[in-house]
Amino acid sequence: MHRKLLLLCAISLIYFTRNISPILASIAFSIIGYLATDYLIPKVSNSYVKIGLHGKDMSKPGRPLLPECIGSVSAVVYVFIMLFYIPFIFYTYLSSNNGNNHGETAILETNPQVAIFPHNKLAEYLSSLLCLQTTILLGVADDLFDLRWRHKFFLPAVAAIPLLMVYYVDFNVTYVLIPKFVMNWLNLRDSSVINLGFFYYVYMASMAIFCPNSINILAGVNGLEVGQSIVLALLALINDVLYLGMGIEATKSRHRFSAALIIPFLGVSLALYKWNRWPAKVFVGDTYCYFAGMVFAVVGILGHFSKTMLLLFIPQILNFIYSVPQLFHLVPCPRHRLPKFNENDGLMYPSMADLKTTKPKPIVLRVLKLLHTFKLIHLEYEEKTKEIIACSNMTLLNLILVWSGPLREDKLCERILLIQFSIGILSILLRHSLGSIMFGHDNLWDIH
Amino acid sequence: MHRKLLLLCAISLIYFTRNISPILASIAFSIIGYLATDYLIPKVSNSYVKIGLHGKDMSKPGRPLLPECIGSVSAVVYVFIMLFYIPFIFYTYLSSNNGNNHGETAILETNPQVAIFPHNKLAEYLSSLLCLQTTILLGVADDLFDLRWRHKFFLPAVAAIPLLMVYYVDFNVTYVLIPKFVMNWLNLRDSSVINLGFFYYVYMASMAIFCPNSINILAGVNGLEVGQSIVLALLALINDVLYLGMGIEATKSRHRFSAALIIPFLGVSLALYKWNRWPAKVFVGDTYCYFAGMVFAVVGILGHFSKTMLLLFIPQILNFIYSVPQLFHLVPCPRHRLPKFNENDGLMYPSMADLKTTKPKPIVLRVLKLLHTFKLIHLEYEEKTKEIIACSNMTLLNLILVWSGPLREDKLCERILLIQFSIGILSILLRHSLGSIMFGHDNLWDIH
Repeated sequence: MHRKLLLLCAISLIYFTRNISPILASIAFSIIGYLATDYLIPKVSNSYVKIGLHGKDMSKPGRPLLPECIGSVSAVVYVFIMLFYIPFIFYTYLSSNNGNNHGETAILETNPQVAIFPHNKLAEYLSSLLCLQTTILLGVADDLFDLRWRHKFFLPAVAAIPLLMVYYVDFNVTYVLIPKFVMNWLNLRDSSVINLGFFYYVYMASMAIFCPNSINILAGVNGLEVGQSIVLALLALINDVLYLGMGIEATKSRHRFSAALIIPFLGVSLALYKWNRWPAKVFVGDTYCYFAGMVFAVVGILGHFSKTMLLLFIPQILNFIYSVPQLFHLVPCPRHRLPKFNENDGLMYPSMADLKTTKPKPIVLRVLKLLHTFKLIHLEYEEKTKEIIACSNMTLLNLILVWSGPLREDKLCERILLIQFSIGILSILLRHSLGSIMFGHDNLWDIH
Repeated sequence: MHRKLLLLCAISLIYFTRNISPILASIAFSIIGYLATDYLIPKVSNSYVKIGLHGKDMSKPGRPLLPECIGSVSAVVYVFIMLFYIPFIFYTYLSSNNGNNHGETAILETNPQVAIFPHNKLAEYLSSLLCLQTTILLGVADDLFDLRWRHKFFLPAVAAIPLLMVYYVDFNVTYVLIPKFVMNWLNLRDSSVINLGFFYYVYMASMAIFCPNSINILAGVNGLEVGQSIVLALLALINDVLYLGMGIEATKSRHRFSAALIIPFLGVSLALYKWNRWPAKVFVGDTYCYFAGMVFAVVGILGHFSKTMLLLFIPQILNFIYSVPQLFHLVPCPRHRLPKFNENDGLMYPSMADLKTTKPKPIVLRVLKLLHTFKLIHLEYEEKTKEIIACSNMTLLNLILVWSGPLREDKLCERILLIQFSIGILSILLRHSLGSIMFGHDNLWDIH
């Protein structure tokens, strides 16, 4: 009943505010996205299980079977609501030109509308959707066929081609600002920027590879994949609101674009979170992780704040750096590194990598001991020989458990989300305070 | 070996002709698409079978199990090569502006390139790809979950939103030409056009629903889905070449757009045909049928020749009209209406619908007898009572078999493709000869 009421509110919001702001329409579409996702997930779950898309929840007593890849519902709903959204983003342009070029005068292709309508904005929006859809296709292929790393690693960069293309023709801003002290140090007083040229495109393509994969890697407890995406979306939105409220006109349109993409994303993600949070009734799958990561890459690239966006990904970056010794097999890496569930007390414990059968090199062992001194890893010793026989797996999840002791799954997830949010807020604050000192100015307050 | 050579040729073609014409690059991408699809199909077939995407070939001795939905490979390869193609379509614009806006002068967003670059063309291209990708997603969902008719029927129209949006802002030509004699008859001498306004958009959305479904319906023998798509592509290309060779400037750019989309489509389809033609090694699945149909809808809509495009679909339209009595259950409709395979002689016979258990109304029986007189249906009578007990299923496939007698599967497919090609060529000829008489002019020769 109150679902229908909410739907009615959303539709009225779209109708009555269509001339005012596309952001209000995006809130309405976000509500519709939430309702559609929340309605569809229980409807389609059985069909997913039937075609073999299911997995065991290892951190529950009895390891119940749950439908997998349900995040693809969120992703597809997002694409469909964003298609319906297109006319409303450009409503003011469409309605103001409405009617002046119908009928016989419009026989030739030359059309006054072509000049007035912001085709570059439309191309930006379409390229974003295209990039996200390509990512979804890639995710679906991975969910269905379990693609190999070397096959799927570069594909997100291909998905980003339309994005980079639009970036090239619309902006082609390929310089980066250099902090004042570095300029002084490098004797670059005449210029405060370095033009990276082609390499800036390589950097953006790398971002399109990094964001989707980093969300996919920081996973393993109920609600974490969606939870971190929601936190990231909120942080990006806070940054957008800062610019929309206090920023100068030149930056406003980019952050309006960013908000227009992120608000509906929040809607479909919250609905997924409702079903995926502890105790999970569904799993999200790779499709959602890739899709969510790409939303942030798209927004960062076309919103011209890819570096600020990367600041919000600090926990993911730390998780990756922390994982490197195991990813590169300096330390033995078991197939699964999820925290271990203890059925007796219902808590999660750090999972351990066995260092007995394949022994790391002495130098690695020494580094492990050092990390242990700083409480960055948990080590197990043989009682007699005092030899290291196991270390906790190097993921952020296990590290939290090393720090805090065993936790229930939902508390563990909450703690990581809280860390992500705190670091994110701090980064935004530092970026606009320290940033303006280091670079001599900040684009939130002024532009040179 | 000669694959690598061909690939090298394609890459050289792209490189050396990048400044000349995007059509030459599209031929190169078509070759790459052919090679990639042909390479991938045998590689991925096992994975498809493993996750349950397989079906029995009912028209072969022993009913062998074949991988299903392999057409999705063609569709996905198409999307990826079209992403790589983007920079080359706009190469002349990109290279001419290259370098004049790098560095410090480009700090603000205002950029001379924005004014010069044809953003409306880019938006057209991106919206086409977006529409095709949405269709592919829909097809994948249908292949995986066997969606119900009422769920999937309107979805292609949603996929067409970006297309209609671009059509609205770039052209918004919603009138249709009326033949002279109708004008005289309606006393509409002052105007040769009727403005359909909003209904023209309904018409275009209907086309986006019709084309994908019509290819999906005319199916059932090896190679027919891909075969008809290839014939349609060739016909559309012949029409494009006519305009590019003899047309006026205003129509040329649209047909260049059409050719740029269709040539790579031919590449990925020919590779699929190689594997799907009799005796088939793979099945194509719904994804390809929807995708192929949508290619023609997209090209017809944004190329402004949707009515000519519909002429090429006459066999599909006839197949649909002929099927109506069974689709609306005026005549009993069995679950499968494919022609029947006879293991003894290896030939296909018309499959029959049983009229004994559920008897049609007397008026329907009389119509069936009339159709029988014109050899448009095959009827079976009870020997004693002379009652009708069965009629051939109403599909174009069965009709051909009624006309020609039993045929081997490949001959049946060839015959339909030949019919499609002949009707198509005739339509194009009539459209440009009779058309110019009926409408007073033809846009191939002149424009009013």
